[in-house]
Amino acid sequence: MAARYLSRPVGLLAVVGGDFPESYMRMLEACDLDLQGIEVREGEKTFSWGGKYHYDLNDRDTLFTHLNVLANFEPTVPEAYRKSKVVCLGNLDPDIQCEILDQVDGPDMVICDTMNYWIENTPEGLCRVLERIDCLIVNDAEARELSGEPNLVKAARIIRALGPEILVIKKGEHGALLFADGAVFSAPAYPLEEIQDPTGAGDAFMGGFAGYLASKNCYDIDHLRRAVIYGSAMASFTVEEFGPQRLLALKETEILQRINAFLTLAHIPISPYFIEP
Amino acid sequence: MAARYLSRPVGLLAVVGGDFPESYMRMLEACDLDLQGIEVREGEKTFSWGGKYHYDLNDRDTLFTHLNVLANFEPTVPEAYRKSKVVCLGNLDPDIQCEILDQVDGPDMVICDTMNYWIENTPEGLCRVLERIDCLIVNDAEARELSGEPNLVKAARIIRALGPEILVIKKGEHGALLFADGAVFSAPAYPLEEIQDPTGAGDAFMGGFAGYLASKNCYDIDHLRRAVIYGSAMASFTVEEFGPQRLLALKETEILQRINAFLTLAHIPISPYFIEP
Repeated sequence: MAARYLSRPVGLLAVVGGDFPESYMRMLEACDLDLQGIEVREGEKTFSWGGKYHYDLNDRDTLFTHLNVLANFEPTVPEAYRKSKVVCLGNLDPDIQCEILDQVDGPDMVICDTMNYWIENTPEGLCRVLERIDCLIVNDAEARELSGEPNLVKAARIIRALGPEILVIKKGEHGALLFADGAVFSAPAYPLEEIQDPTGAGDAFMGGFAGYLASKNCYDIDHLRRAVIYGSAMASFTVEEFGPQRLLALKETEILQRINAFLTLAHIPISPYFIEP
Repeated sequence: MAARYLSRPVGLLAVVGGDFPESYMRMLEACDLDLQGIEVREGEKTFSWGGKYHYDLNDRDTLFTHLNVLANFEPTVPEAYRKSKVVCLGNLDPDIQCEILDQVDGPDMVICDTMNYWIENTPEGLCRVLERIDCLIVNDAEARELSGEPNLVKAARIIRALGPEILVIKKGEHGALLFADGAVFSAPAYPLEEIQDPTGAGDAFMGGFAGYLASKNCYDIDHLRRAVIYGSAMASFTVEEFGPQRLLALKETEILQRINAFLTLAHIPISPYFIEP
C-alpha cells in the first residue's frame, strides 16, 4: 500500500484463511494492487498477531502470534511477478523466503525483513537467506541479537559479512541508519505529536524504500539515501492513524510536503570544510 | 575543556575539596581555562559520582552520588566573569543556579543542564530557574520526566512553556533534537565502533554547543543548528577515551574532519520539492 505511491505495478504474494474479511480484500483492490498472488484457504485461519505498546511506544510486548495458514505456506510466484526488478521478502520463515527466491528470475534488488523469532529458532535458514539478498531491513534490537554485538556499527559489519551488501537499521522514533558502499547515513524520524498506532510502520518503511528504488531502478548510495527518506515518510504517515488507514488515499502533495519536512528537519547549514592536506 | 576549542576565554566556576588532585588542576590549567572561579575547601571532599553502564551503553545505573562540597556551595562569580555573553549552568541545585544568575550582568544566552534528582526533589526551584534561562539541555528520559509526557514533541512544548525558548534533547547514540523558533532539528550521533566511556558526553556537548555560540554571538536558528553539530562532535570525541583524555589536545583539523563527517552522515541528496499552491 505504501509502495504503490512510488512505483506500479505492485504485486502481493500471500496466503490468508477463509476468515480474511471481504472488506480487506476490497481495500487492497482499491489500492490498485495486483492480488493474483494471494491464495485463500477456505476453512483455515489467517495469520494474526497481538501486542501491547509500552509508555513511550518504543518497545512492545507480543501478546500472541498465531501463524495459522502461514505455518505451511507453500508460495507459488505468479508468472506475472517472476521478472520483478525489486523483490521484498516479508517477515517469514527463512525457508519460505528462499522458496520465493527460487521462483524469481534474477531481480536487481532483493530486500528482506526478519524478526527475533527466526533469529532465535531458525538461524541456519536465516543465514541461507542472508547469502542471497541485497538488502536487510531490521530494527536495532534485531541487529544486536543477530550479530551478538551491542554496538550498531560493529553489528552492521558483522551482518553485512553474512551476505547483504546493504543494511538498514530502523530505530522507531530515533530514525534509521543505512550502511552501504562504505558510507553510513543517519535519517531522522519525523517528529509527530500524535502517534495513533506504531504497528506496521516498519512494513510501510519497506514499502516506501522499495517503491522508490523500483521507480528509479538505480541502487547507488544517493538513491539508497533517498529511498530511506521515502521509507521514513511512509512510516510517519502510517502511525498517524490506526491500521493502514492513512495509506489508503494519500495525495502526492502530502508526500512531497512530508519529504520537504524531512529536509528541513535534517538540514545542517554548514558547507563542508576544506582541510589542507 | 570542549568549549575552549571554539571560544576563549572560558572561565570555570566550581568548588572542590582538598582531595582534588593537583594533577587535575594542572590539566585544567594546561587547557588554558580561567580557574579563578574555582574554590578549594581544604578538609572537605570533592563531589563524586559512580555508575554502571548497561549492555548497549544507552542506559546507566547510578551506584553512588556524594555531593560533598557541592551540598553547601555558595558561589561567588568573579568580577572577570560577570559580563560573560554566554553562561552555562552545570547540573546543580536549582537554587544555586539562581544565585549564579543573580551575579551576572545580563548575558545574551543562559544555557542550563539539570537531572532527574532535581526534577524529583526540587521542582519549584527548578521552575524558578527555567523562567530565567534561554536554553535547557536535557536527555530524553529527563525531558519525559520533567514534562510528564512520553511524546518528545509534546514534552518539548510543555517544557518550553515553562521558560526556555530553546530546548535541546540529547538521545545518546541516537543523536539530539533541537526545538527553537518554530523549527525542529534532528542531529545524528557520530557512529563510533569503539566507545570507551560515555561519561561526560553530555557535558562535552554543552561545551561545544556553548563554545560555538559564544564564538559567533548570534543565536538564530541556523547558528543553533550549527552549535548542536559542534556539541555532537565534541561529545563524539569525549567517548573515544576514558575521562576527558580526548579533549586534552584535539587538533583543529580533527574537529573540522569530524564536522565534515556529520555533514556526510546526515546528507539527503534531494532538492526541496516545489509544491504548487
